[in-house]
Amino acid sequence: MDYTIRVATLEDCKDIYRMIMVSRCGDRRVAQGGTCSVCARRTHGHSELAKHEKVSDQVKIAQRDLEQDGFSKNPFFQSIIAEVPEQHRSKDGHSKVGYALYFFAYSSWKGRSVYMEDLYVMPEYRGKGIGKALMSKIAQLGLAAGCNQLNFAVLNWNKESMDFYLSQGCWDVTTGLDYHCMRCEGPALEALARGDPKN
Amino acid sequence: MDYTIRVATLEDCKDIYRMIMVSRCGDRRVAQGGTCSVCARRTHGHSELAKHEKVSDQVKIAQRDLEQDGFSKNPFFQSIIAEVPEQHRSKDGHSKVGYALYFFAYSSWKGRSVYMEDLYVMPEYRGKGIGKALMSKIAQLGLAAGCNQLNFAVLNWNKESMDFYLSQGCWDVTTGLDYHCMRCEGPALEALARGDPKN
Repeated sequence: MDYTIRVATLEDCKDIYRMIMVSRCGDRRVAQGGTCSVCARRTHGHSELAKHEKVSDQVKIAQRDLEQDGFSKNPFFQSIIAEVPEQHRSKDGHSKVGYALYFFAYSSWKGRSVYMEDLYVMPEYRGKGIGKALMSKIAQLGLAAGCNQLNFAVLNWNKESMDFYLSQGCWDVTTGLDYHCMRCEGPALEALARGDPKN
Repeated sequence: MDYTIRVATLEDCKDIYRMIMVSRCGDRRVAQGGTCSVCARRTHGHSELAKHEKVSDQVKIAQRDLEQDGFSKNPFFQSIIAEVPEQHRSKDGHSKVGYALYFFAYSSWKGRSVYMEDLYVMPEYRGKGIGKALMSKIAQLGLAAGCNQLNFAVLNWNKESMDFYLSQGCWDVTTGLDYHCMRCEGPALEALARGDPKN
């Protein structure tokens, strides 16, 4: 199947947002039994459905956030789109069938790197090389920008994606990490900004 | 002691690089017994010294990389400097006594965040609130840019820093992470870019 990989524009945000929302619930593969109010996929009964919708609730951003954050001056991320010709549109009429979202990061040990935040291909378009092509494009863009490292995360339950990434020459560095991941957010971050932590 | 926290400029790179190099070995606190060829700190005998210098070898960037990566168009990182007045210069004559290096990141779940790559204060200037002030400034800059999350890492051995961060309202999210950290770099990244992984 023909497809093109190209840099995303503001006009793609609606489709990127649609795929973000679907990927957050649909990919848990809860399948058959109920219907998620967000992605309209059917799930296994009430408890699975609740879990399913809970995942969708975790998406804090709206389409307008994507538009502002990725397509105004000094964007917070970059994105690319996989698009198929008219005759290969999805059952629901979509021609934008995959996307990847990335940003540049920096290490004072190792210099420039690229961080792949998302890589997604609609289920009916998988197995056609589109995910590989998106990832390869990010590698190209990263190398062109002087990065020699690509980093990303894979959710623990997602063995299918893990196998795919391993097949693409990536490796799991989790157990070799000699650091703790730390966070500050919400009211604690505001207190820190005031110079008044923990109050 | 008076000090100022300000946005770093190109002219600060020499001092930032000096502090990066010292922090990479000096902060391992190997103390007394030999002399590191990079930071001139004394260490515990030969084996500790070798370990010490090995850490310094891991710094792949040069001062000119910092200059290009942080101070040209579309910089890969931002940085801030802590500076003391003339009368409080260090024994070695330094008035730039601390720095922090950060960049903006993005999550398609949670939106904008700021990642603190480095936070460093020269040992003789610690305990004076300079580290807190640098970190508070990053929180301010992050909030002003619309971020509501600050992330960073602490090396496992660095209990002193961990205690400091916990005192600043940050928390350790390592054990709660439900994902694997993945990487692709060097020849594997080049192969991925060619669409020819593992070859």
